[in-house]
Amino acid sequence: MSRLVATYLVKNDQQLSKRAEAIALGLTIGTWTNLPLLEKEQLKKHKGEVVHVEEKGELGIIAIAYPTINFSADLPAILTTVIGKLSLDGEIKLIDLEFSEGLLNQFPGPAYGIDGIRNLTEVYDRPLVMSIFKGVIGKPLGELQEQMKQQALGRVDFVKDDEILFENELTPLEKRVPALRDVLDETAELTGKRTRYAVNLTGRTANLSDRAKLAVELGADALLFNVFTYGLDALQSLAEDPNIPVPIMAHPAFAGAMAASSSHGVSYSLLLGKLLRTAGADFSLFPSPYGSVALDRGEALATVESLTRKSQLNRTFPVPSAGIHPGLVSYLIKDFGIDSVINAGGGVHGHPGGAAAGGKAFRDAIQAVLTEQPLEQASQNSEELHQALTKWGSGEVVR
Amino acid sequence: MSRLVATYLVKNDQQLSKRAEAIALGLTIGTWTNLPLLEKEQLKKHKGEVVHVEEKGELGIIAIAYPTINFSADLPAILTTVIGKLSLDGEIKLIDLEFSEGLLNQFPGPAYGIDGIRNLTEVYDRPLVMSIFKGVIGKPLGELQEQMKQQALGRVDFVKDDEILFENELTPLEKRVPALRDVLDETAELTGKRTRYAVNLTGRTANLSDRAKLAVELGADALLFNVFTYGLDALQSLAEDPNIPVPIMAHPAFAGAMAASSSHGVSYSLLLGKLLRTAGADFSLFPSPYGSVALDRGEALATVESLTRKSQLNRTFPVPSAGIHPGLVSYLIKDFGIDSVINAGGGVHGHPGGAAAGGKAFRDAIQAVLTEQPLEQASQNSEELHQALTKWGSGEVVR
Repeated sequence: MSRLVATYLVKNDQQLSKRAEAIALGLTIGTWTNLPLLEKEQLKKHKGEVVHVEEKGELGIIAIAYPTINFSADLPAILTTVIGKLSLDGEIKLIDLEFSEGLLNQFPGPAYGIDGIRNLTEVYDRPLVMSIFKGVIGKPLGELQEQMKQQALGRVDFVKDDEILFENELTPLEKRVPALRDVLDETAELTGKRTRYAVNLTGRTANLSDRAKLAVELGADALLFNVFTYGLDALQSLAEDPNIPVPIMAHPAFAGAMAASSSHGVSYSLLLGKLLRTAGADFSLFPSPYGSVALDRGEALATVESLTRKSQLNRTFPVPSAGIHPGLVSYLIKDFGIDSVINAGGGVHGHPGGAAAGGKAFRDAIQAVLTEQPLEQASQNSEELHQALTKWGSGEVVR
Repeated sequence: MSRLVATYLVKNDQQLSKRAEAIALGLTIGTWTNLPLLEKEQLKKHKGEVVHVEEKGELGIIAIAYPTINFSADLPAILTTVIGKLSLDGEIKLIDLEFSEGLLNQFPGPAYGIDGIRNLTEVYDRPLVMSIFKGVIGKPLGELQEQMKQQALGRVDFVKDDEILFENELTPLEKRVPALRDVLDETAELTGKRTRYAVNLTGRTANLSDRAKLAVELGADALLFNVFTYGLDALQSLAEDPNIPVPIMAHPAFAGAMAASSSHGVSYSLLLGKLLRTAGADFSLFPSPYGSVALDRGEALATVESLTRKSQLNRTFPVPSAGIHPGLVSYLIKDFGIDSVINAGGGVHGHPGGAAAGGKAFRDAIQAVLTEQPLEQASQNSEELHQALTKWGSGEVVR
């Protein structure tokens, strides 16, 4: 019998087994004990089952196995079943979902994933580097072109839109994408490196597919998507569409509304890890454990583990974000490995030499770490890295 | 200048004004103070503004006005702007959004709303009564037909699917809806009252519109929708579609994941109140303040106020749910008025005389309250109400 196992963190009310049993029945067949034998026989394959109960001081862990026959193989049905009505019922947090192989087979996973993106970018032996436009609201197209040029001169692999850049009169998709594509093509002539542009996919759900195709036609190399304000299923449809032939970058905007509480909602590692990978995100952005907007380090590592562990699905590129500067590159690689994306906004644009120098400082820092050279030493041969370390320091991560 | 005002509950760190200013700039134009005059002139109309800061002991309230020129008029863009990245940034909860009239004009609101549903049902002078299928997973169609018959014999206005009933072999939409429609047509012959059936709309986002049309064709009188596992924008598209000519009932499944925490996410009254109404829910189900799965009474009343206060949008029917039995009818009417739906599962099916008697007990209780007759007195002329009060009591709500 194919089952989906949901693990919850609850308050330990000393009645964990009773609560678990009530959930297992309440969210499946309703009642059991007093049913006639014939009906028990008929309902057995639909019955939820408590598979784990554990007291952890003031907290408790319970795990329920839900027969997959009870729901359709889509994430709205799954979330409604395992944390639908239950989300309203006091302190309870969904911390993991274990999909059976048969169920997981019905989800696409990333169309590109880490391997596909490495093939696209032809970068195989180091973390990718991404930078972000800064302060683009209200700015004319020329300003974005200049920002794009500087970032691309720094030879970063990707530049992404700000997630709060929507359709607007100054820089609408139809003007912005071709103009910035041209900048990237021109810069590639100078640097020999074609930086890729992740375009913010916005608007009404019903139009996402058409807007995505238009963005690609206009020159988008990837799409940025605020999945949690749309629903995971909308992401899945984009990932499944063969006519949207670019990787999709899931932005964590609004994810904190579902995951930041320690006692309610869904864990970050499930939401930004397993669920995004299952639905088909090629990249998952999440708060790095270093910045002011920070994820707990354990939660960040669990997220990465969910994105990259061996599975029948392609792996999703982890993108620890916020508070990233070149001095942190050794920590990033130690914590997240080379199969990750080093993503910076202020750490690129705030470089004393500008964004181009900022990008180079990151690339040089990565080169140093991968050749086991201390950053300070490497900075003797890189003025850009030297300036970055002087400004932001290195290794001052407090654990 | 058209603005959207977002009000947040935060931890009082004694630096509320500073934090508010950082949000107002960070989520709009980025920086301000050191900009050249010319640029300030250009960016002024895009700049977020702090409009309220208030210390409340350990907590603080801050309100930011976001120029609507910064985003497209859709809920994903709005949520991304006001509580996107910000949701990841420590303790912060979005408790209200104040739409400008111009912005609100771009949203549909309920297509039917309270007035439209009263016209459909021809019930003008009392709360509506709804009951819910119970324990339908794994049950054959015959069982659902019998449940439907008993509920309809109780002359309830609506019967709704269980929100965890998805496409399944035993009772798929294509078989279930026509079969239950026939039951309702037959029962109407007996009772003179045509009960209406709210069908659970499920499956992939991309197929919702087609499935909704099919359900209506097959005989659905209304649609139940687990909006929070899909996104508010998906609801909006259903509400806007003239080819889906039935009211839509928003179920709060998964809403707790976004609203149950006192320190993170979005308030219930905003999520289940204003936002559902804006997106176009004709009914909003929310936990009543009486049951074990309970909303705080103040939050429940604020939700109802959001659903029904005077506005350019139609009003949404409030449906306080869970823990409802006939003895609570006087509280329900006192708290929520006659423009509400009295919605019961166990309080109908658990009646000693069965679901038909359960429905009648509710109708008799409502009649008594509206004619200012004490329930105990009315129960002398209603065996069904008498049995209900004997089983569940009346008036034992603890405040």
